[in-house]
Amino acid sequence: MSEMLNLSNIRAAAKRISAHAFRTPIMTSCTMDKKAGRRLYFKCENLQRTGSFKFRGAINAVSEMAVESRPVVVTHSSGNHAQAVSLAANLNGLQAVVVMPRTAPHCKKDAVLGYGAHVVDCEPTEAGRENATNLEIAKLTAGGRIGEFVSSSQDHRVIAGQGTVALEMLEDLQQLDGIIAPVGGGGLLAGVALAAKSLDPHCDIKVIAAEPVNAADCYNSVRSGHRQPLTSVPQTVADGLKTNVGTVTWPYIKKYVDDVVLVSEQEIKDAMQLVWERMKLVIEPSAAVAVAAALTQQFKEQHSKLQHVGVILSGGNCDLNKLPWIHM
Amino acid sequence: MSEMLNLSNIRAAAKRISAHAFRTPIMTSCTMDKKAGRRLYFKCENLQRTGSFKFRGAINAVSEMAVESRPVVVTHSSGNHAQAVSLAANLNGLQAVVVMPRTAPHCKKDAVLGYGAHVVDCEPTEAGRENATNLEIAKLTAGGRIGEFVSSSQDHRVIAGQGTVALEMLEDLQQLDGIIAPVGGGGLLAGVALAAKSLDPHCDIKVIAAEPVNAADCYNSVRSGHRQPLTSVPQTVADGLKTNVGTVTWPYIKKYVDDVVLVSEQEIKDAMQLVWERMKLVIEPSAAVAVAAALTQQFKEQHSKLQHVGVILSGGNCDLNKLPWIHM
Repeated sequence: MSEMLNLSNIRAAAKRISAHAFRTPIMTSCTMDKKAGRRLYFKCENLQRTGSFKFRGAINAVSEMAVESRPVVVTHSSGNHAQAVSLAANLNGLQAVVVMPRTAPHCKKDAVLGYGAHVVDCEPTEAGRENATNLEIAKLTAGGRIGEFVSSSQDHRVIAGQGTVALEMLEDLQQLDGIIAPVGGGGLLAGVALAAKSLDPHCDIKVIAAEPVNAADCYNSVRSGHRQPLTSVPQTVADGLKTNVGTVTWPYIKKYVDDVVLVSEQEIKDAMQLVWERMKLVIEPSAAVAVAAALTQQFKEQHSKLQHVGVILSGGNCDLNKLPWIHM
Repeated sequence: MSEMLNLSNIRAAAKRISAHAFRTPIMTSCTMDKKAGRRLYFKCENLQRTGSFKFRGAINAVSEMAVESRPVVVTHSSGNHAQAVSLAANLNGLQAVVVMPRTAPHCKKDAVLGYGAHVVDCEPTEAGRENATNLEIAKLTAGGRIGEFVSSSQDHRVIAGQGTVALEMLEDLQQLDGIIAPVGGGGLLAGVALAAKSLDPHCDIKVIAAEPVNAADCYNSVRSGHRQPLTSVPQTVADGLKTNVGTVTWPYIKKYVDDVVLVSEQEIKDAMQLVWERMKLVIEPSAAVAVAAALTQQFKEQHSKLQHVGVILSGGNCDLNKLPWIHM
């Protein structure tokens, strides 16, 4: 593993992505403040390009590649990272190959195709995904071209890009004393934790991860001090958070994250509906995990001193025909 | 009828409501611009307090009352105006009585009760509503108190409040050459048209009403030059726009509105889903009517010169358990 990133890498990423990524707004809500018992500040990455924070990491990584070897950008994802990489490649004039499980919804494939990427179907298993990805890179090499893989979270360029979320939050809100970020693979959490703790050298700001209780690998890892990936795919409505924390993101999480708050499936669905109803914002279940964490008794009791807490609404991509609170 | 309002009334309303109403953000979207063939600017009244622009008119009217006779505020509405008046009264320390059809959804009654208003059930007909309202005012009078009625649109104080939407839009965006507002009773349209045309004395800015084809009273009225209310309740998913333009709002519409664009039920539903999906904003069907109008062939052809068009997202209150594109 390469050296760990520092704040200057995140500042460089902020500069690199500024031409393409939105500086997303921060919203507040009296209703949510009352429910949380403190002031909450919602960083609206659901309003980011491609509908999630993933665009920041993708455009940072792909823009770096674009000034170097100009490869074909290869990734595998059925979710937000696929769209993010596709648009990032498109904006940099690079080709993108996206390996997607053949079971992925048509609308997701259409979004990726819409950004001009080439979609390759694979079996919906980890082995199927990796085999297909390696095959695509090998085919490119055989054809005399370079295929470069961009992981959705285990890549320092991606982590640096995601860290810009916290940079913007702390520029806009000096009073923040806590940030809650959802955790799946840990790219967002690692970048945000690094940025927040580096900007606040006394470490007065708390960085808290939010995770579904059904996918509690980060919780177990932080409690034990050792990375403890789950051995089977967890069942949770927060489909963006099924991935385990990886070897690249773990050192940041171990070093910088103060706590992990777990939430139930019902809490996720309730928080999602609450934000739609009261804040009029479309957020996806993974984003609702951070909101749900802010409303838990655990967070209220164990972090009662925090007055101004930033909550990252990580994305807004969900199937509007299948809402988790509607039983059809 | 009293004299018509002028710009100074709207400026006074802006000052009066500034302590309570939000200055809502204006959002843009490349996707929507591409579909519309020009730049669109979305004024997010779905993010206004109580979830719709109605709060502007209500807080303006009720705040005026509060410094005068301090009456019990009486209104009838099953929709956004009910919540708006309830919160406006609450914030001014006044009691509110809201007459609602006994068939109104529980969630709407709960919202009104939540703001501290008293709810009175009535038969779900125009006669039932008016009888119940008059009875409540008579009961207050008999008890030695004053009950003052606030119409959802046929009230100059309400129209002045709604006009502040356009005031903010034109302060933030000097380049606007068109504004599209949905029309039901016409309070928003009248206020916005008056404000826009008064701020732009050469009348270069076009004010366009958007209306469901199934509830085309404003369209018929503007075309014929005479107010032509519908004689039966129209069937449209845009439940906020079933009301006819009234005698108080009509003179403003007749004088200032340039055109009325009609949209089908399918166009309303499609526009609503599009804004949820691509802008990640929860808007209600009535707000989608303005979006749909901006995307019609009629608007594209007949107003091809307009480059920078403001679209008023009038509200975001809808039943999340019953979305118009989901057939259960």
